[in-house]
Amino acid sequence: MNLTRKEFLFLSGKVAAGVTMGRSLSSLAMTGAAEDIRNLPVVRKIHEHIAREKEKHIVNVQADLRQPSVSSWNMGINEMAERMIDSFRALGCKEAELVPTDGLPGIWAYYDAGAPKTIVIYMMYDTQPWEKKRWSVDPLSATRMPKPPFPEVIIGRGAVNDKGPNRFFLNTCESILAVNSRLPVNLMFTCDGEEEQGSPHFHQVLDRYASRLKTANAELNVVPTQDAEGQVAMFLGVKGILEFELEASGARWGKGPQKQPIHSGAKAILDSPAWRLVDALRSMYDPLTNRILIDGFYDAIRPPNDEEEAMLGQLIRQSGSQLLEEQKKNARSWINGWSDAEAMRHFLFDTTVNINGIWSGYTGTGAATIVPEKATAKIDFRLVPNQDVSTQQKLVEEHLRKKGFGDLEYRPIGGGDEWSQTSVHEALVQSLLAVYRANHVEPAVWPRMPASTPEAQYTRKLGLPAVRGGMGHGGNEHVDDEYIVIEGTDKVAGIVQAEQSIVDLLFTYAQT
Amino acid sequence: MNLTRKEFLFLSGKVAAGVTMGRSLSSLAMTGAAEDIRNLPVVRKIHEHIAREKEKHIVNVQADLRQPSVSSWNMGINEMAERMIDSFRALGCKEAELVPTDGLPGIWAYYDAGAPKTIVIYMMYDTQPWEKKRWSVDPLSATRMPKPPFPEVIIGRGAVNDKGPNRFFLNTCESILAVNSRLPVNLMFTCDGEEEQGSPHFHQVLDRYASRLKTANAELNVVPTQDAEGQVAMFLGVKGILEFELEASGARWGKGPQKQPIHSGAKAILDSPAWRLVDALRSMYDPLTNRILIDGFYDAIRPPNDEEEAMLGQLIRQSGSQLLEEQKKNARSWINGWSDAEAMRHFLFDTTVNINGIWSGYTGTGAATIVPEKATAKIDFRLVPNQDVSTQQKLVEEHLRKKGFGDLEYRPIGGGDEWSQTSVHEALVQSLLAVYRANHVEPAVWPRMPASTPEAQYTRKLGLPAVRGGMGHGGNEHVDDEYIVIEGTDKVAGIVQAEQSIVDLLFTYAQT
Repeated sequence: MNLTRKEFLFLSGKVAAGVTMGRSLSSLAMTGAAEDIRNLPVVRKIHEHIAREKEKHIVNVQADLRQPSVSSWNMGINEMAERMIDSFRALGCKEAELVPTDGLPGIWAYYDAGAPKTIVIYMMYDTQPWEKKRWSVDPLSATRMPKPPFPEVIIGRGAVNDKGPNRFFLNTCESILAVNSRLPVNLMFTCDGEEEQGSPHFHQVLDRYASRLKTANAELNVVPTQDAEGQVAMFLGVKGILEFELEASGARWGKGPQKQPIHSGAKAILDSPAWRLVDALRSMYDPLTNRILIDGFYDAIRPPNDEEEAMLGQLIRQSGSQLLEEQKKNARSWINGWSDAEAMRHFLFDTTVNINGIWSGYTGTGAATIVPEKATAKIDFRLVPNQDVSTQQKLVEEHLRKKGFGDLEYRPIGGGDEWSQTSVHEALVQSLLAVYRANHVEPAVWPRMPASTPEAQYTRKLGLPAVRGGMGHGGNEHVDDEYIVIEGTDKVAGIVQAEQSIVDLLFTYAQT
Repeated sequence: MNLTRKEFLFLSGKVAAGVTMGRSLSSLAMTGAAEDIRNLPVVRKIHEHIAREKEKHIVNVQADLRQPSVSSWNMGINEMAERMIDSFRALGCKEAELVPTDGLPGIWAYYDAGAPKTIVIYMMYDTQPWEKKRWSVDPLSATRMPKPPFPEVIIGRGAVNDKGPNRFFLNTCESILAVNSRLPVNLMFTCDGEEEQGSPHFHQVLDRYASRLKTANAELNVVPTQDAEGQVAMFLGVKGILEFELEASGARWGKGPQKQPIHSGAKAILDSPAWRLVDALRSMYDPLTNRILIDGFYDAIRPPNDEEEAMLGQLIRQSGSQLLEEQKKNARSWINGWSDAEAMRHFLFDTTVNINGIWSGYTGTGAATIVPEKATAKIDFRLVPNQDVSTQQKLVEEHLRKKGFGDLEYRPIGGGDEWSQTSVHEALVQSLLAVYRANHVEPAVWPRMPASTPEAQYTRKLGLPAVRGGMGHGGNEHVDDEYIVIEGTDKVAGIVQAEQSIVDLLFTYAQT
């Protein structure tokens, strides 16, 4: 999933942190299944192999991190893609190929285990760029060092987002094959070289293999979701997103300054695109009542179903005050003075409209008195089942037209990810829950993330259940000194435990 | 007057351009007076002296331009001030001194002619900085070259804004004294070294000499106001300005993100300072009806008096379509579809509220989905008689409090220039009108500029009439290749005609 790192940081680092899971959701989990799996001789041998090969696995991660793959600089993308393809071939994938798109290429690979179950794996292989001088080591050095409380981490661009975790997965497959000669499931690898650009062409990769992908049983995105205290999360869905720029300009309006700013003395006789944007924005939303004022915008929403209510109840019962503590690092109160329980409900189930950015005219220090010739805002609406992007977009555009703002330019941003929802009863979800239990970590099970990814391309377009989760921990995505934990603590998985948990997951799922 | 160059450009270059003046205002002008003056033998001799000394006068201008005086770089200010003080002493000023302020120094100088009339002269001696690589010659070279349709101009920083015109005035005084041994009026020079910073401390200069300044008869600011076609303007007042930044922040509000932006998924549970700013702004003004919604904001306005109505009528009768043509370079229609005549009335007499700039959150390309922790706008209200800055500011702040926006931070920008108004019947105004007539150029007489300067410090604080105007032409203030015309056309004054018109003005005024 091309979840932006900002989204990931927010959800895994902040929101998921401090959330624990009690008994009331236990009935939903395959208690014991993963523990049994861990006692299988073959799985024990694989675990041992991973422990034995730890140094080699670390070196594999370092080698990937030393190959830059910065999509925004178009640096090393093809070389990194070749490394991935070579790895897929080395695993025994008979198909492993670059997939051209209108942008940077994706990758498709297929490992045929002759198994009854097939999992689609999402991987992104590009990274953010860097500002070298802000790093304490070369961002391409993949330096091993202590980072308290962790005895050892690797620092380097892509360490946790996502080249490190990708290699954990491939290391795991290698170890399974060293012991068992076959993976327990078939794997379809779908890799994205433009995640950091918002995955603008990833749908072209999936479309090409759609008929194959539809035959799979589930989609899985394995990333480290433990926080520094070891708590772990899993996510069964996302909200949709309708994102766009809205621009008022004198030129399109036929009023106000046409080509460039004009002295603000002229405000007496000329209309102002900045005031027009303010007016248009305010017409869509009332901040005081927290209501979206667009006719019909709430109509498509279905109420939370019983399962979602159950998960909400669980999150509220177990996590309330801890969630609040985490969020309160950057907040003092919820909208309308909601209680934690009320806030959690709105967090999961509300559609929203937000101003991500707004700009117009002079924004430097001191004075410049001008009527700006245009004004722009970046807006996002988050959508919940069953609000679809195209329908909600029509309602927004209709609203603007009806209110007389038809001249404002509506410029879409991104592809408009749809909402996605997978049931907790799906076998892959149950398998991951069981693996968490077997590893003695209690997950926060989020019916959905209040964030957006292209997950719906797997779920609603291809009909697969999807889950995102995994053991391990890393940080500083997108910024300097990005790291992934190699040697963990008693609560946080290092590379060995993280890879072992992937073994557990694949074997547990294979038996469902 | 520390009129910003943006304001000057707008008014002299755009608005004043194309405005001619017909007979109906003739009754107000001292027709003939200046023509008589030009026929005086002493004035003829001075004119001849100026023509003879043209080369020396040009060299004087070049010398000033080669001495940098960039207030924002604190470069050469003291050296330039010393040049000015030396020049005042050379004229025979017994007082000529640097005036310390809390910022860069001003200058005070007094020339005692033993004459019955005393004029206060405003001069700014600092300049804008420059981007050397954008210039076609060194900005400190004061290069003489043709610039069609003008046979010769000087290019250099400060050429027209205002170091060139200052030296024209000083050259003129020199020539008068070469022929006549005494100036026809006493002169109080008040010089500003921080005009390009918005004259934040200039009131400290004037306050120090307030008792002396009050004994003067008028304040004069001589700058070239001819456009490239020769049309000339004069301004008898300004609007006041109430300028401030308004900032909504989570920290002050106690709601929304407190310290930094947060993922926009959190909009479901956190309030948004950006939406709050939009709401607060919209509460102050209705763009559709063009009404300020602040209780009492219009109460202090007095209707235009007979004189102002007469000048308005004149501007409408003579200039309507030409004004429209000029403005239409950057506009297609006036607010509410006003006719030109209606627009001119509102231009002169309306109070306004404008968004000079607004910014919040992510303003780069593509997507970043955040709830910004703060949002800021730069606002200006233009004020007309009798709206005073402090009263109107109280109304704004009261409005924000009453509407529940008391937590928004109100940060004043600039000193808050008050409105200023001088009657067309004042002798200095009449004298300038007569000089324009004698030079066969027809002025647009603006009862006030729809812009703001500290002129009220001379008029309403010190009780002096004030006028701003002058022959000559220059351009590219604040940008590259700033120039002043040295050799003009049949319509535009060069250095000789511009200086001669200053002689005419001082002698005409002396005889009133």
